[in-house]
Amino acid sequence: MEKVAFLFCIHNHQPVGNFSHVIENAYQKAYHPFINILKEYPFMKITIHYSGILWDFFRNNHPDFLKELKELVRKGQIEIMGGGYYEPIISIIPDDDKLGQIELLSKTIRSLVGMSPRGLWLAERVWEPHLPKFLVNAGIEYISVDDYHFKKAGLKEEDLNGYFLTEDEGFVIKVFPGSEKLRYIIPFHPPEETIEYLYQLRKKVDIGAAIFADDGEKFGVWPYTYHTVYEEGWLKHFFNLIQENLNWIEPMTMGTYASKYKPLGRIYLPCSSYMEMDEWSLPTEAMIAYGKVIERLKSNPDGNEIRRFIKGGFWRNFFSKYPESNDLHKRVIHLSEKIKDKIRKKAFSIVRSKKVIYYLYQAQCNDGYWHGVFGGLYLPHLRHALYENLIKAEILYDQLRYKRKDWVEVERLDLNGDGGEEFLLKNPKLILLFKSQGGSLLEMDFKPKAFNILNPLTRRREGYHQKVLEAKGKISDEKLKTIHEIFESKEENIDQYLIFDRYRRVSFIDHFFSEKTDLESFRRHHYDEIGDFIEKEYEVRIDMLYKKKRITFSRMGNIFLDQKKIPIYLIKSFMVPTSQSLIEASYQIINRGNGVEVICFFGIEFNINLLAGNSEDRYYEIEGQYITDRRLGSIGESKNISRFSLIDEYRGMRVFIWSDKNFNLWRFPVETVSLSESGFERIFQGSCLLLFWQMELKSESPFLVNLKLGIEEYNAGRI
Amino acid sequence: MEKVAFLFCIHNHQPVGNFSHVIENAYQKAYHPFINILKEYPFMKITIHYSGILWDFFRNNHPDFLKELKELVRKGQIEIMGGGYYEPIISIIPDDDKLGQIELLSKTIRSLVGMSPRGLWLAERVWEPHLPKFLVNAGIEYISVDDYHFKKAGLKEEDLNGYFLTEDEGFVIKVFPGSEKLRYIIPFHPPEETIEYLYQLRKKVDIGAAIFADDGEKFGVWPYTYHTVYEEGWLKHFFNLIQENLNWIEPMTMGTYASKYKPLGRIYLPCSSYMEMDEWSLPTEAMIAYGKVIERLKSNPDGNEIRRFIKGGFWRNFFSKYPESNDLHKRVIHLSEKIKDKIRKKAFSIVRSKKVIYYLYQAQCNDGYWHGVFGGLYLPHLRHALYENLIKAEILYDQLRYKRKDWVEVERLDLNGDGGEEFLLKNPKLILLFKSQGGSLLEMDFKPKAFNILNPLTRRREGYHQKVLEAKGKISDEKLKTIHEIFESKEENIDQYLIFDRYRRVSFIDHFFSEKTDLESFRRHHYDEIGDFIEKEYEVRIDMLYKKKRITFSRMGNIFLDQKKIPIYLIKSFMVPTSQSLIEASYQIINRGNGVEVICFFGIEFNINLLAGNSEDRYYEIEGQYITDRRLGSIGESKNISRFSLIDEYRGMRVFIWSDKNFNLWRFPVETVSLSESGFERIFQGSCLLLFWQMELKSESPFLVNLKLGIEEYNAGRI
Repeated sequence: MEKVAFLFCIHNHQPVGNFSHVIENAYQKAYHPFINILKEYPFMKITIHYSGILWDFFRNNHPDFLKELKELVRKGQIEIMGGGYYEPIISIIPDDDKLGQIELLSKTIRSLVGMSPRGLWLAERVWEPHLPKFLVNAGIEYISVDDYHFKKAGLKEEDLNGYFLTEDEGFVIKVFPGSEKLRYIIPFHPPEETIEYLYQLRKKVDIGAAIFADDGEKFGVWPYTYHTVYEEGWLKHFFNLIQENLNWIEPMTMGTYASKYKPLGRIYLPCSSYMEMDEWSLPTEAMIAYGKVIERLKSNPDGNEIRRFIKGGFWRNFFSKYPESNDLHKRVIHLSEKIKDKIRKKAFSIVRSKKVIYYLYQAQCNDGYWHGVFGGLYLPHLRHALYENLIKAEILYDQLRYKRKDWVEVERLDLNGDGGEEFLLKNPKLILLFKSQGGSLLEMDFKPKAFNILNPLTRRREGYHQKVLEAKGKISDEKLKTIHEIFESKEENIDQYLIFDRYRRVSFIDHFFSEKTDLESFRRHHYDEIGDFIEKEYEVRIDMLYKKKRITFSRMGNIFLDQKKIPIYLIKSFMVPTSQSLIEASYQIINRGNGVEVICFFGIEFNINLLAGNSEDRYYEIEGQYITDRRLGSIGESKNISRFSLIDEYRGMRVFIWSDKNFNLWRFPVETVSLSESGFERIFQGSCLLLFWQMELKSESPFLVNLKLGIEEYNAGRI
Repeated sequence: MEKVAFLFCIHNHQPVGNFSHVIENAYQKAYHPFINILKEYPFMKITIHYSGILWDFFRNNHPDFLKELKELVRKGQIEIMGGGYYEPIISIIPDDDKLGQIELLSKTIRSLVGMSPRGLWLAERVWEPHLPKFLVNAGIEYISVDDYHFKKAGLKEEDLNGYFLTEDEGFVIKVFPGSEKLRYIIPFHPPEETIEYLYQLRKKVDIGAAIFADDGEKFGVWPYTYHTVYEEGWLKHFFNLIQENLNWIEPMTMGTYASKYKPLGRIYLPCSSYMEMDEWSLPTEAMIAYGKVIERLKSNPDGNEIRRFIKGGFWRNFFSKYPESNDLHKRVIHLSEKIKDKIRKKAFSIVRSKKVIYYLYQAQCNDGYWHGVFGGLYLPHLRHALYENLIKAEILYDQLRYKRKDWVEVERLDLNGDGGEEFLLKNPKLILLFKSQGGSLLEMDFKPKAFNILNPLTRRREGYHQKVLEAKGKISDEKLKTIHEIFESKEENIDQYLIFDRYRRVSFIDHFFSEKTDLESFRRHHYDEIGDFIEKEYEVRIDMLYKKKRITFSRMGNIFLDQKKIPIYLIKSFMVPTSQSLIEASYQIINRGNGVEVICFFGIEFNINLLAGNSEDRYYEIEGQYITDRRLGSIGESKNISRFSLIDEYRGMRVFIWSDKNFNLWRFPVETVSLSESGFERIFQGSCLLLFWQMELKSESPFLVNLKLGIEEYNAGRI
């Protein structure tokens, strides 16, 4: 080939649950202007991917844009890539969902623009070597990943100007290595650099393709890029330069290249994603150590030779790093198996089976399951959207099984694969997930609103947190750095919010503490927990009562007080009725200390997330009264009360807690500090609520308290 | 735990096709004495794996040993691990074979020693993250890999004193990290070092297991180990030391530990094996670079921190490194699919379906598919054993489909996944695999002897070859180094055999060369190939003639002679009859050089491997005559002959080549230099045969020649 083939591939996606104004903004700032400019350069050939979420968005909001795409397809200027419909990480969803998600998107693309995708955009380029079989079975011929994947298989950059073949069980697919170099310079450096790159490539290799494959949001949505790409004209300038050099640059779609040219060889790629993702998926300690190693290698004369063999982690480890992500994923997997069993048995009508599958697939959208330098898992609205779809699927599943309106069931299993036991309790209104560890509640879904009220994120140390301090107050005025170089903070003094939790922020956490503990020390986790109940193993018993299920957790634990270790027996049982969205909890705490009297505080912690800490329409009501600062993100103390609510006028929902023994209440927001495209940000992850009592515990008189935790629909006008 | 749990796990295996005296030797030197000593120490608990090959061997040769094992199982002293019956790399065999191989071994173990294996020895510890589903479905609860796998997921050595959970699609298994440190000191360093290791561990962690999991052959079969382990008494001494310290060391089987103790956490392991395997599976260039990096890091003060993130390749890349391994693997996969389709349709009788599955499974035994510091793929008898089983399975498959004795069929497909085309031709006597690249023959199986005569290994540069020069003549007198430190040579001047092939050693390779080329320069690959036909693309046509299939390869190529490029059209067709083990080849070479006359040599190369270059019962017969040095490993030249044979009295088989135009013949052995347990060794990989003619090629008169290549049964007494 006397020419260099230039393969320009872009991937466009917005998460399930993203705000519609954000998607519209991406359309106005990136998706639409990109295509608009492309139309003016008929010689440019683009391979392009839109996730199903975007196809749905175009269909509902910009049908004319679909016509434009169809026309470009007809002219051969763009080749549309397929993928999983809701952009799941393909390797971690059930095998039949792998097929189903891909086929659903291919079908949609066929019907909307009249072409069958031959290529697949592999979500987050998360590769595992057993994927080819599923891809081939779903009709896929090629995919694109990063050159990094190939380098980690032992190849060198100069080996990678074309595509390779890989296979599993003899199912062969073509894999393009997207250039890391091009990924860093397009569109952040002057277009001339890319032309120079192509020129050097032409000189070096007989026959070759320069492969760019990256996010379409880099063309308009990422910070500063709308200005540079369109207002300053980066894209037009780039296309003009290509036009001037068409005598040796040949823009080509990946499909065309794959048909015209032979593979460079056969390869097997290890579990990998792009370099940064491999770093992010490492455990935090390892991620920090990795960062230091990379830093040190920069000044090492053998640095490049060594870096060649440096490898981070791989995607699946987000499930061990973030139990919240794992729990949700396993809930989806678990339900998926059950639902598909029903579908196989034709228990669902065709319409309902389609509907339930759509919900399941949406609950598999990758963004809310992981975290790197974009919010991802840290964004409560994304996690909520995943739960919402899961719950909607579960409602359809439950409706299929129960025609009556009064039922309650419990399933005992290791749902999340941590070796412990979980208990999935359901009735027509609620889905509850208890855990023997800590005897706690992990999930409480209110079916009428398809909402999990227990969906906070625990505050964990992240690899980048030391940069918070360095970045404090600093505003970068360099515009053209890539996103990976940008560390800004949306807020001054954000470092004060760097509090790391000693345990996971679930609900029904059993605390024992002394009078030295106050709200502030508790909030900051600077207090002494004198009991050994949190996250420890409880015994479990399940009873079926008249129209109720009861699950009882008990633990022989200890209180450590005045150098003494006093054995304490704690029994808590939760009753769930057959038709109400209510948990009746009753606690018994017994001093087994052979006459040693215990005086301390006992508290029960809840972490409830109604998604807004600073909103007018979501607030506390304490003892049925308004309070001064009633925001769900407020810090406060209430003494000697018997009940309170968290009201969500936006969704029309009220969460209430009531006790038969007056309690004191501490409340404060759980807030994380995480990275997003535009820098560090503080995110409200829910309201921490501690109900507590002073307890004088003598041998023969147990401490007893009964609670109710319920959710009901709420009509703001009613008050 | 006040005690340290000591988990001693050993894995015993001999490859399919290994010589029976080698297996018997391993039994006498390792398997039997190990168990004999174990019986004297009833407190010692061992987790032990024998591959199905060994269970078969014990059953056939040492039934008393089975009784001893059963008794030890009954006493709880040993816990037997399962695995794939014929020790396949689990991740690369078809999904139903994964299940089938594991279940077959479990069933055998149940019937022989009365226990169901809970653990699985993962062949070569080759892990991929999608395995848990298959393992769980096959009834497996735990496996053991190396701590290296865990370190590459970001964990540190001190995190690894117990087991972890991992999962795929919610299928959870327990994974033990075998200690690299223990793997290096047991049994190579004094037993006291292991006790010290356990002691340090006890001081460091609250609760912990020290995990040794490695090959049983290290106890008696590896160089010097019989002497140290038994004659010098390493093993007894080790057990005695444990006995003296039973107050704080608790020997335990893995199953017991897995039942008694909780997991240390949840983890996802990347595609990996032990550290050395990850290195071996890298492409050769990368492997050498990797070795240098590791070497350099030894003197780097940050070396350990950096090495933490250093990772080599992964197992599957042996398939891109060694096309011979890939071709065989894909042949097995391809046939496996077809056979299992027939089994699903109940086309086979129960007895035959069992038989055919056994052959298929044997053809999946890992040893002959890869190479590290043991012979593996370099050992012709191992490759042969795999082909033998493949062919036997194929015979049963063909017998099912054809009742007649005269049939011939051809299948056109990309069998080996390289993007080119292969052609699988079969009749009742032969299986042939042609390739459009080079128009060559890759495989020629003689069904009556279940033997592939075209099974040589191409001579390739290996990462360790420079060590040949360093190790030349040197005999190490250090006994207690581990196998990985030992580099000895079985032969002086082995370096002279380091010749690397420029193309793959297949058959029907079309050579053009000038009179400057002689046997020696050809043999050493120090000659000029003046044509461009080798490994280049040929056009292909397939015809069905009366009782024959014909496959025709043609190529418009060039000869480069006297600074001129002369277009040459080469057509070669191969006819395969319906009932004979014969290929009739006819060549036409046409000068398209517009009157330019070409005078050069044309040669056709064959590489035939009858497994013995230096044996009395395998020899050449030229023009029906004995020759002086008739060994198949001889170097020689014969002029103006019309036919010759390679006779294999051992198998009763004769391979013959006949031509209608007298030819000259060069013959020489193809020999590789590779590593084995005992050092470098030279291995006969087959006989290279070049038939050649001087050719005066004028425009209007093509060069024509007809050949026959056949195989027939041969009774030595007949002569």
